Amino acid sequence: MADIDSKLEAPKGGQFNVTTGPIRGSRKIHVPVPGTDVRVAMREITLEPGSGEAPVRVYDTSGPYTDPKAQIDIQAGLPLLRRDWILARGDVEDYEARAIKPEDNGQLGPDRSGGVPAFPNPVRRPLRARPGANVSQMHYARRGIVTPEMEYVAARENLGRAALKDALVRDGQDWGASIPDFVTGEFVREEVARGRAIIPNNINHPETEPMAIGRNFLVKINANIGNSAVASDVASEVDKMVWSIRHGADTVMDLSTGRNIHDTREWIIRNSPVPIGTVPIYQALEKVGGIAEDLTWEIFRDTLIEQAEQGVDYFTIHAGVRLPFIPLTAKRVTGIVSRGGSIMAKWCLAHHKESFLYERFDEITEIMKAYDIAYSLGDGLRPGSIADANDEAQFAELYTLGELTKRAWAQDVQVMIEGPGHVPMHKIKQNMDKQLEACGEAPFYTLGPLVTDIAPGYDHITSGIGAAMIGWFGTAMLCYVTPKEHLGLPDRDDVKVGVVTYKLAAHAADLAKGHPAAKMRDDALSRARFEFRWRDQFNLSLDPDTAEAYHDQTLPAEGAKTAHFCSMCGPKFCSMKITQEVRDFAAKQNQEPGAFIAAEDAEKGMEEMSARYREAGDLYIPAAE
Amino acid sequence: MADIDSKLEAPKGGQFNVTTGPIRGSRKIHVPVPGTDVRVAMREITLEPGSGEAPVRVYDTSGPYTDPKAQIDIQAGLPLLRRDWILARGDVEDYEARAIKPEDNGQLGPDRSGGVPAFPNPVRRPLRARPGANVSQMHYARRGIVTPEMEYVAARENLGRAALKDALVRDGQDWGASIPDFVTGEFVREEVARGRAIIPNNINHPETEPMAIGRNFLVKINANIGNSAVASDVASEVDKMVWSIRHGADTVMDLSTGRNIHDTREWIIRNSPVPIGTVPIYQALEKVGGIAEDLTWEIFRDTLIEQAEQGVDYFTIHAGVRLPFIPLTAKRVTGIVSRGGSIMAKWCLAHHKESFLYERFDEITEIMKAYDIAYSLGDGLRPGSIADANDEAQFAELYTLGELTKRAWAQDVQVMIEGPGHVPMHKIKQNMDKQLEACGEAPFYTLGPLVTDIAPGYDHITSGIGAAMIGWFGTAMLCYVTPKEHLGLPDRDDVKVGVVTYKLAAHAADLAKGHPAAKMRDDALSRARFEFRWRDQFNLSLDPDTAEAYHDQTLPAEGAKTAHFCSMCGPKFCSMKITQEVRDFAAKQNQEPGAFIAAEDAEKGMEEMSARYREAGDLYIPAAE
Repeated sequence: MADIDSKLEAPKGGQFNVTTGPIRGSRKIHVPVPGTDVRVAMREITLEPGSGEAPVRVYDTSGPYTDPKAQIDIQAGLPLLRRDWILARGDVEDYEARAIKPEDNGQLGPDRSGGVPAFPNPVRRPLRARPGANVSQMHYARRGIVTPEMEYVAARENLGRAALKDALVRDGQDWGASIPDFVTGEFVREEVARGRAIIPNNINHPETEPMAIGRNFLVKINANIGNSAVASDVASEVDKMVWSIRHGADTVMDLSTGRNIHDTREWIIRNSPVPIGTVPIYQALEKVGGIAEDLTWEIFRDTLIEQAEQGVDYFTIHAGVRLPFIPLTAKRVTGIVSRGGSIMAKWCLAHHKESFLYERFDEITEIMKAYDIAYSLGDGLRPGSIADANDEAQFAELYTLGELTKRAWAQDVQVMIEGPGHVPMHKIKQNMDKQLEACGEAPFYTLGPLVTDIAPGYDHITSGIGAAMIGWFGTAMLCYVTPKEHLGLPDRDDVKVGVVTYKLAAHAADLAKGHPAAKMRDDALSRARFEFRWRDQFNLSLDPDTAEAYHDQTLPAEGAKTAHFCSMCGPKFCSMKITQEVRDFAAKQNQEPGAFIAAEDAEKGMEEMSARYREAGDLYIPAAE
Repeated sequence: MADIDSKLEAPKGGQFNVTTGPIRGSRKIHVPVPGTDVRVAMREITLEPGSGEAPVRVYDTSGPYTDPKAQIDIQAGLPLLRRDWILARGDVEDYEARAIKPEDNGQLGPDRSGGVPAFPNPVRRPLRARPGANVSQMHYARRGIVTPEMEYVAARENLGRAALKDALVRDGQDWGASIPDFVTGEFVREEVARGRAIIPNNINHPETEPMAIGRNFLVKINANIGNSAVASDVASEVDKMVWSIRHGADTVMDLSTGRNIHDTREWIIRNSPVPIGTVPIYQALEKVGGIAEDLTWEIFRDTLIEQAEQGVDYFTIHAGVRLPFIPLTAKRVTGIVSRGGSIMAKWCLAHHKESFLYERFDEITEIMKAYDIAYSLGDGLRPGSIADANDEAQFAELYTLGELTKRAWAQDVQVMIEGPGHVPMHKIKQNMDKQLEACGEAPFYTLGPLVTDIAPGYDHITSGIGAAMIGWFGTAMLCYVTPKEHLGLPDRDDVKVGVVTYKLAAHAADLAKGHPAAKMRDDALSRARFEFRWRDQFNLSLDPDTAEAYHDQTLPAEGAKTAHFCSMCGPKFCSMKITQEVRDFAAKQNQEPGAFIAAEDAEKGMEEMSARYREAGDLYIPAAE
């Protein structure tokens, strides 16, 4: 999401390293894709020996940071996973990078003293498409090429689908999506070719593990980070990203403002295994001292090149905020709440001119295709309150974004569309339907939406409700909201709560859409719960640490984690235990449980059954024991 | 919700009084109902002087505890608000209460030593219907009588609707509900008469402020409390209830087990302004030492009378767990997770007999109508996992609950129906539709449902998503779930988070259904947000303390609460400020904002507008200041 204002606060108490180490109960595996040299990173949760349960493979966004075998050195950055794939296509050239200017870092001066230190080993010779070439994944897809990136995505998306192949029962309502039983590289290619999915992967960010955003793939989530007013150490800047992806963020947006923007971004990108998005107009605004009227196309264009060379994977561009739409917001309760939208509105009004983002759109697209940067077309006029949802301004902009989508696609540039915001439940589906129609099924990327305005402090939840619903309806990526939304800057705990809330919303959407393998994890966790495998229950959960901590607050003893009871009913009476008795009893009848006793002849067989039951009395552990 | 196992833990650190004092920024008002002696308690949020904003009236569940004028003495209990109304109907008699037995308090002995002290002033002579009489609100309603209870409910439900009368624009999707523009006593009567709403109000609990649960009223929420294993002081037991209603619980269920059940309940009821629900089978089970097989109709019946005399307002009765349905759960991933359902399943299997709750249902109904206790027909076979949602066992029970509803209605006894549980989003609506069909629109009362199983520690959120949705579809009351669900016992903070989460879910449902006045609070808060009235924003929120605390973590200075900027963009650039500029500019054009510049002639008028704009330059506070 473009300009939600959730920057991550610096951790209290000074020095602080990036978070490493495996996620509890999990190990990192690398699964080879047959017939390629692609090896896909996944996380495997091993369950209790003796439980008879197979390990559960889950989608892993955390990168090498959770791999004990990986050498993490944030001064060196991550390995260049995709470098060879990019060079092998033979359509790029390296060149002397644009020189860093003082204004790139907020006028810190050429020596950048007083700010974040420069990344020790920046890319001096970035890549770009050779003249006449187009290096976007969409371009390859449309020429019928299945890239290694597409193969990676395919293997990554399948998770447990292979195991289900024979027993697959699809159960869901997908609202017209086309989710395959099994994802192949060719399927990914088709989806990218028709614009229904994107793989945001700047050729100057070869550190990424490829991922797809699209309606027929797993629902993704984004977390926002950004530098704080007080310059913190670079490790903590990088850790904001590492912390987010550890808990499941699929992409991260760097919404830094103020000083150090360039250097902070360099540190983040060089260390990020997930795509990084930005809102270039934020940095451009800093370059003109915060005066929106002083923005020019030249400054903006230069900023795009600066960020393209660093490796930003997608740009939020608010090109749909057109001059004629601005007065449509005058009657709103909360006007224009998007920061990017406001900047452009102010510029348009001041000059009384059409937005240069709209006017220069095709020129921007030329840059995008030279680096394979994806558009995230910003919804600068999104509603900031329930009262303003689904209004004329919002939809006027959405239809313009549809027009721009087609213009970007004409140059084979990847596009996703940003969406609201604040929307009551009964108006959510209309947003999705109109987006699909206006934007030709380009992936939708929404902020929540929040389904009520009255719960500041709980807006991760008000928005999580809307996010789960719109994800079900077809939104491809959900931008997280933290508990601090509307109130202040999120801290580390807030970021974790925001990410986990969105992860559960995205998963709920996958379940409801009938993703073939999504339910495997729910079922594994529920079996663990039923069988009192507490550790498995924790390890299968989205946040094992919190689950265990909550459990331990009531029953801290180590033995309680293996005990066949819980704090709710205690050891004396347990509903799960009784169920096991029902099951054992039904099994003893040596027939199909459903046939055990039919409703019609319940009376008839009752006495006989009762007698048999008493014989088998040892099945029952007396509840008083 | 019947038997969700969320008992409230004793507060750490010993002695602890009930929470009193006004909710911040609010005052208690008592609004007279013309033509009656009914005065309805409400909460009024006063907004900043000079803002031009009228005070906002909100539904108030907190009772006298938030009224500084009220004298709170938990040893005396609350005033008997409804006593005269009950007596004036001339259809009750008082009689010598059933004697308290040692087993009522878990075999503490006749002196009850070692337990919670007895309430000093219990009711020695409870009320019941005179022979041949029926004191249920449904009975009055069906005879055309609008009771003071119904008048109270009507005035309480309206909130801001009177103010909206002329300008009312209905906006929502109500899925076939019949929500009136304005609620009258007669409307309440009609809804109660046809069974579409209930007013749970035992005649022995005259302390209650009447409230309605029904599809055409505001969506309500329930919080569960229960004594802890370690006997805590009585004030803290009472405070669990007071704390819940302070944050918005409309009813409270006392799910106590173990010792002190009788006395704890007496303290709670005598001090509760909201209806209290129980699951009588829990206490009955304690009376037989926890051995489900030893339960008898006689013990159960005696427990019903015991609780009826104390004033319990609704009973969860798991009469739908019939013997033939039990084997249908054998193939489930999580079997029977309802505690009440398990108890009855165990009893049925052990005796191989049909449930005595089902067999004796009409006799139970005889008791209900003598005290005006409402049924909450328990869903003992609700799914405990995504895998088990909407299965044969669940729906077999639901249709039985429909049959029992009609049997209760035949005696003019009020009924609501409990529902799941764990249900993926795409299967939620089916639950609502089947319930409406099977149970003749009797109010639905659901636990969540949780839309995924993989987020223990966050199940207030997984269930809040389902709760908001099913509330929108027509569920009348939502049983809260705390973050500790499945893991341990909730503490004070967990209860607050659970209640607020459900309050926001219920409100989101009201908004989406198109409740005529629900949006007034969202709009007032959004205007406050837009105008940087920070205190108004906090005070209008569901949890003012948390909202302010979060704000202060970033900008603690007192001045920041009146500053016209926030921590997100800071004083230099502010999207809300720019919107104000758009608005001022549109107003200066002295025409309708929509007509300011039409999309078609944007180009034409542009230069002229630009000139005018520059003249009006002082409208703009330079962003750099």
